[in-house]
Amino acid sequence: MKAVLVICDGLGGRPTDYNGKTCLEVANTPNIDELARRGITGLLDPIKPGVRPGSDTAHLSIFGYDPEKVYTGRGVFEALGIGMDVQDGDVCFRTNFATVDENFNVLDRRAGRITEGTDELERALQSLKSSQPDVEIFFKASTEHRGAIVLRGHGLSGQITDADPHKTGVRMIRSEPLVDSEAARRTAEIVNELVEQSYHILKDLPINRKRESEGKLPANILLFRGAAVKPDIPSMEELYGIKGVGIAAGALYIGIARAIGLETKRAEETTGGADSKIINKAKLAVEELQNGKDFAFIHLKGADSCAHDHDAEAKIAYIEKVDEVIGYLLDNLDWDDTHLAFTGDHTTPVVYGDHVSDPVPVVFVGPNIMPDDVERFNERSVLKGGMGRISGRVVPILFGYCNWLKKYGA
Amino acid sequence: MKAVLVICDGLGGRPTDYNGKTCLEVANTPNIDELARRGITGLLDPIKPGVRPGSDTAHLSIFGYDPEKVYTGRGVFEALGIGMDVQDGDVCFRTNFATVDENFNVLDRRAGRITEGTDELERALQSLKSSQPDVEIFFKASTEHRGAIVLRGHGLSGQITDADPHKTGVRMIRSEPLVDSEAARRTAEIVNELVEQSYHILKDLPINRKRESEGKLPANILLFRGAAVKPDIPSMEELYGIKGVGIAAGALYIGIARAIGLETKRAEETTGGADSKIINKAKLAVEELQNGKDFAFIHLKGADSCAHDHDAEAKIAYIEKVDEVIGYLLDNLDWDDTHLAFTGDHTTPVVYGDHVSDPVPVVFVGPNIMPDDVERFNERSVLKGGMGRISGRVVPILFGYCNWLKKYGA
Repeated sequence: MKAVLVICDGLGGRPTDYNGKTCLEVANTPNIDELARRGITGLLDPIKPGVRPGSDTAHLSIFGYDPEKVYTGRGVFEALGIGMDVQDGDVCFRTNFATVDENFNVLDRRAGRITEGTDELERALQSLKSSQPDVEIFFKASTEHRGAIVLRGHGLSGQITDADPHKTGVRMIRSEPLVDSEAARRTAEIVNELVEQSYHILKDLPINRKRESEGKLPANILLFRGAAVKPDIPSMEELYGIKGVGIAAGALYIGIARAIGLETKRAEETTGGADSKIINKAKLAVEELQNGKDFAFIHLKGADSCAHDHDAEAKIAYIEKVDEVIGYLLDNLDWDDTHLAFTGDHTTPVVYGDHVSDPVPVVFVGPNIMPDDVERFNERSVLKGGMGRISGRVVPILFGYCNWLKKYGA
Repeated sequence: MKAVLVICDGLGGRPTDYNGKTCLEVANTPNIDELARRGITGLLDPIKPGVRPGSDTAHLSIFGYDPEKVYTGRGVFEALGIGMDVQDGDVCFRTNFATVDENFNVLDRRAGRITEGTDELERALQSLKSSQPDVEIFFKASTEHRGAIVLRGHGLSGQITDADPHKTGVRMIRSEPLVDSEAARRTAEIVNELVEQSYHILKDLPINRKRESEGKLPANILLFRGAAVKPDIPSMEELYGIKGVGIAAGALYIGIARAIGLETKRAEETTGGADSKIINKAKLAVEELQNGKDFAFIHLKGADSCAHDHDAEAKIAYIEKVDEVIGYLLDNLDWDDTHLAFTGDHTTPVVYGDHVSDPVPVVFVGPNIMPDDVERFNERSVLKGGMGRISGRVVPILFGYCNWLKKYGA
C-alpha cells in the first residue's frame, strides 16, 4: 500500500473572495473534482474549530501531532529547512539581515530586500562567538534577507523574546527571558551579545560599503526571532514503520518534513513561488513511490502567497496548476493500492490576505474508502460530504485506510 | 426512562468486503433499518479519528471514559470477566497454557489448543507462590488455553513487559520493567519466578503425561501478558445514579461491564461465538429492564469473529441474526419510555481481518430524539445522517436523552 498527502497551502477561501464565490469554486478543476467523485469529502479544521493556524502548527496537526504538546516555535523548522544540523537541546532562530543606524534604530527589517552577496555576509558571520565558551554558534543564510542560527550547549532555553522590534523607526530591542530560569536568562544574554557582534562584523564589510555607495541600505545587523528548542517528535517511521519523502520548496515545509523524519527531496524547477513548475513535484512523488517509499508528502505553496497578495486571479490560476498536479497523480498512481488525501493547511481568504480559522475542504480517495455523493471539491460542495468535520489528524486517518496503524488497546 | 446499548462487535466494514459493498449493506436487516427510520444516524469514531481501537479501549470510550486517562491494560478485564475478585492495587494478567521444550523453547502458545482437563491444571496451579511473602497469587483457568492471574500485595506495578514471546520457535522471554521503579522491577521478578514455577508444577501432571502419550502437546507452562493494575474508574451508578446490567458471553466484555459497575448476567445458550443464541440476550435485557434495571448493555461478538476469519458470508449471516435481536427489542421495549443506541465497537473489514480506524455507523432511537431522513442503516447511508460524526461517548449521549446527566457547571 502507498499513501500520498497533497497540501495546497492556503487553499481555503471565503465567498467574499470573488463575486460571492471562493477562488476554488471559480477555478476550473476537473481533476480535483474527480477526487471528490471517487472519494469521501468533508471539512478540516487544521487544528480545531476556532483556532487560527500558523503554517507550522497546522502542518504538525495535520500530520497527527498535537501542537499544544510538541510545538516549540518556528525557528527550528527554518533551521532544519535550510539544511542545518539540529540536535537535542539546540536553540534555533530565524534571522533577518536588517539595517540599523549608528544608534541602533531599525531602518529596514529586510536590509532593502537584499538579494545578492549574502554569501559574503554568511562567511563573515562564521566568526560569531559567544563569550560563554561552552556554547557553539552556527549561522546559515538562506534566500534574500533570510537565515537561521543555532545555539548549541548545555542549559539553553527557547523561552526568550525576539531580538527584533518587528517594525521600523524604533530602536532595536533586547531579547528577554520569558520564564524565570537561569537557562532563559543565559540564552537571552547570548542572543543580545550576538546581535551586537553581528553589527560590528557586518557594518564595514565591502558588500555593505558598495551597497551604501549605490544608495542601497546596508545589511548591517541580524535580527533574531522564533526561538525554539528542538521539539521531541517521534518520527513517522517510529510511529508507523513506514518510509516517507517530503517534496517541498519552502524552507519551513522542508524543515517540518525533516522534523518528522521524512527524507526531503527538491523537484527540478520548483521555487516555492507561484511560478514554480509544480508538476515536477508530482513526477518526483510517483518516482519515489515506485522506488520504494511508502508515503509521499507534496507541499504546494503558491495559492497561499497569491492570497497574501490579495490577488484572486493569481490564486485561481495557481489552483488550476494544482489541478494539473492532481491530474498527473490520477494518471500515474496505482489506484488499487494507493490512498491519497488532498487538502489545505488553512484558509487564506484573498480579501483578508492572511490565515483565518475557517475550515478547509478535504478529500480522501482509495480502495478502502466509502465514497459519498459529493461530485465537486470546494468549500460549498463538501458541506454535504460524508467525512463530516475533522480536526487535524489527516495523516493518521490516511494511514488508517492503508492499514498502517498500531492497535491502541487489545 | 430506560436505556439500552447494543454493541455488535466489529460491525463496520469496507466496500472491498463484498463486491463493492460492506457486509452490513448486503445483509437483509429490516429491523435495524427500522431503527434508522425512527432515529438519528451518524458516524462513530470509537476513540477518535485516525485511532485504531482495541476492543477494550473502544468499549471504555463508548461508555464515556477517556482511555488515555483510565486504560491500564487488558489483563484486568480478563480477570474480572472470568469472575475473579480484583482489588485496588492488584496487578492482573491474561495467561495462556502453552508448550515449551526442556530448554524453554516455545513450541505452541496454546498447548495444542487444549480444550479438556484444564480444571486439573488450575487445581495444580493453586500452589503457585511468590518468594516474597507479602504477595498473594490467584489463578483461574477460563476457556481452552485461556486464564488469568492476579497478584495482590503492596508496591506492585503493571508497568512490565509480557512473559510471552508472542511467537513459536523461540525461547521464552523474561518480563522486564517498563519504568525505572522498584515496584516494576519487583513485579517483573515475581512474574519470572511464577513462570518458571508453573513449568515445574505442570510438566509432570497426569494430564500432560496422558496428552504426550496421545501425541498431543503438553500444557506445561503459563505465559503472562497484558499486565494491568486495576484502573480507577467511577461506576455508572456513581456517575449517573442508575443501575445497569451487562449481558455478554465473552470474558473481556463481562470484565469491562464489571469494571464500570454493571451487574453482569449470562443469557442461556449464549457462547460468544457466531453460533450463540443471541436472541436470548434480548429477552434477558427486556426482563431485566422490567425487573427494575435502568440500563441494559448487550454485547454481540460474532460479527467480529467472522471478520477476523475473513468470512463475509458468515458475517452477513450473523448481522441478520443481530437484526432478529433488534426486532425482538422493537417488539418488546416500551418505546414511549426507552432510548436505544445501536453501533459497533470498531470496524473489522473482512478483507483485512482485524480492527481498523474507519468509523462505524451509529443510530439513536427514542422519544426525545430528533430523527433525520436516513432510512437504511449502513456505512454508506449514515454519511447523510443528522448525528454527524462523534468520537466515543455513545453512552453519555444516550443517557442525555434519558435526562440522566448531572449538570456540569451551574
